[in-house]
Amino acid sequence: MKWKRSERLVDMTHYLLDHPQQLIPLTLFADMYQSAKSSISEDLTIIKETFEEKGIGLLMTVPGAAGGVKYMPKMRDEAVRELIHDLMEELGHSDRLLPGGYLYMTDLLGNPEMMNRVGKVFASAFAKEPIDVIMTVATKGISIAHAIARHLNVPVVVVRRDSKVTEGSTVSINYVSGSSRRIQTMVLSKRSMKSGQRVLITDDFMKVGGTMNGMKNLLEEFNCQLAGVAVLVETEHADEQLIENYLSLVKLHEVNEKERTIALTEGNYFSKGGKE
Amino acid sequence: MKWKRSERLVDMTHYLLDHPQQLIPLTLFADMYQSAKSSISEDLTIIKETFEEKGIGLLMTVPGAAGGVKYMPKMRDEAVRELIHDLMEELGHSDRLLPGGYLYMTDLLGNPEMMNRVGKVFASAFAKEPIDVIMTVATKGISIAHAIARHLNVPVVVVRRDSKVTEGSTVSINYVSGSSRRIQTMVLSKRSMKSGQRVLITDDFMKVGGTMNGMKNLLEEFNCQLAGVAVLVETEHADEQLIENYLSLVKLHEVNEKERTIALTEGNYFSKGGKE
Repeated sequence: MKWKRSERLVDMTHYLLDHPQQLIPLTLFADMYQSAKSSISEDLTIIKETFEEKGIGLLMTVPGAAGGVKYMPKMRDEAVRELIHDLMEELGHSDRLLPGGYLYMTDLLGNPEMMNRVGKVFASAFAKEPIDVIMTVATKGISIAHAIARHLNVPVVVVRRDSKVTEGSTVSINYVSGSSRRIQTMVLSKRSMKSGQRVLITDDFMKVGGTMNGMKNLLEEFNCQLAGVAVLVETEHADEQLIENYLSLVKLHEVNEKERTIALTEGNYFSKGGKE
Repeated sequence: MKWKRSERLVDMTHYLLDHPQQLIPLTLFADMYQSAKSSISEDLTIIKETFEEKGIGLLMTVPGAAGGVKYMPKMRDEAVRELIHDLMEELGHSDRLLPGGYLYMTDLLGNPEMMNRVGKVFASAFAKEPIDVIMTVATKGISIAHAIARHLNVPVVVVRRDSKVTEGSTVSINYVSGSSRRIQTMVLSKRSMKSGQRVLITDDFMKVGGTMNGMKNLLEEFNCQLAGVAVLVETEHADEQLIENYLSLVKLHEVNEKERTIALTEGNYFSKGGKE
């Protein structure tokens, strides 16, 4: 069956969005649609321009025999600002205040539309770097990790607090949690990462960075490298920050339990080079 | 700026895929592209036919003033069989065998491409039913829950084993785990579900169904209804199955630790009405 351009455009758009960060040879499309490579190239030009015009992402073309086309997630500054605005509006509701000055965020982490946008922002920020694995710690960071992973097309690894029989043999470390100064344990299945892999770590919330630092230490046990740190909400605190380089979308300044107010500002995303 | 058909097709495809199960008024597209509704209708016909031809999904048109178009995930039987085949091949490797006859599956649950396909299968099976929430229990089921949720555009709710301060006030139940017959606890934040919601529960692994049954009991505490049960791998066992209606993709028959073999077959997906 011969495909019309209009049909090819629809199908190729779906295919590219479904295979982010993957180099797709033009011959694959040419065979798929029984079309000449020159027609496929023209199709890709239209898709590339539309993706850029509408802020969907980038289409990179690699010339030559081993070449092809690659869709890379790329969220525009404008859309990032909108997301940060939406997050701050959501998180600023006084009914999110929990006893002890904690913030209820679980619903946000379970919202697929929000998580998709959060994942796309972080994926955009790290799309040009080699990332092999997204790492997080159970339970709350898992949805963010998967959202990023889908846009970068790399696996997720979940660090646990306890050892489970279904994880097989594990590597375990002790670390000092940043704010409570308690000794805690982190466990990760031995087969979850290979030596030399580059790892992006992520979590929903970061105070001093004790948990992040624990994950960093765990990386060393696996001879893996830290490629970046992505946090949804960071919080202002008196103690020294243990993590130097990270990207955050929102910063929690102050929670006033008596007045029931939550003071939030933009995180460091735009000041830390997450920019276009 | 006036948009060409080719550009509209690319952008609309992205928009529809990004907004599953959502009724989108034609006027939204007409305004977005400064085009006549009749042109938008023609675009949608092309997209609809390509989506169906390539097994991407369905495009439902609702006529009238309150009408519009809705993209629904729909995976073809052929693609479901391919996924089940891939899952069985992956899970059948003898190096997945853990002491005690357990199966290492964590890598599979962290694989974004596999999870996307698993999510799409289950979303397809339940796309025509009213589903308000996807529920799972920490930790392993979370990636499947989010994968389904993204294709159905509904929130995820994660049941925990322990109560955390960041969850606010919670509802807790005790239940008997199916295989070990131990009393276990499940905890869910009070604000995570509203009375009357229809809930699809999911998990990575099911033996007798004790955990699933626990989630069912938890639903009753919230006055919510069970809309369906989706399981990646179910296992053959001597005891009575506690859950009657569920969909599974793979069935684990036997694990032979001495011979290091894993016997798997297709789950009940095709026999239980998950069909086209």
